[in-house]
Amino acid sequence: MKQVIIVNQSIKLPKGKLAAQVAHASVGAFVEADDDARVDWLEEGMPKVVLQVPEAADLLRLYDQSLQNGLPACLVEDAGRTVVPAGTITCLGIGPANDEDVDQLTGELKLL
Amino acid sequence: MKQVIIVNQSIKLPKGKLAAQVAHASVGAFVEADDDARVDWLEEGMPKVVLQVPEAADLLRLYDQSLQNGLPACLVEDAGRTVVPAGTITCLGIGPANDEDVDQLTGELKLL
Repeated sequence: MKQVIIVNQSIKLPKGKLAAQVAHASVGAFVEADDDARVDWLEEGMPKVVLQVPEAADLLRLYDQSLQNGLPACLVEDAGRTVVPAGTITCLGIGPANDEDVDQLTGELKLL
Repeated sequence: MKQVIIVNQSIKLPKGKLAAQVAHASVGAFVEADDDARVDWLEEGMPKVVLQVPEAADLLRLYDQSLQNGLPACLVEDAGRTVVPAGTITCLGIGPANDEDVDQLTGELKLL
């Protein structure tokens, strides 16, 4: 089991802000997963990887593919109170799900 | 309701690694919370803030205080496979819990 969180590299967030957005995607995708996936992932120590894509459109495409493939996913839009305009898509969480199912969509992406 | 994630500033992690550790603390503290706190926090949009302390000892102290006060908390030690030595305490998640209960412990800390 694994979870990936994919960051929109076209917006430059301060590291604390970025970390909060990634955490938001992580919890958001976690609560979308079914009970078995959650339990298995927790027991394995919550393995997760943070990846990157060039722009928001990449996140939208991966989000659609995740839903089509039945994977839990959470697309995060910044509320825009601080650093970036409201509605900016900052990151996407996918999983926890089987490694192969996640890798099928994200295996080619670079680490952040 | 809020959650805070507090980062050990004495270790310098690359931003992707830092984000993964913060996400780990966020999910870890979330699963320690009771059902009512989780539901309330999710309904409020998962408000969270990332804070900082100078060193690991501060995180240990805050972790002990959180448990004494009955707050859900998760102390994250890096597995040490990549950037920092194994067992390094990187961050601490507290909550979701009532704002006042979290602020009592962390209200004086700086944003990361």
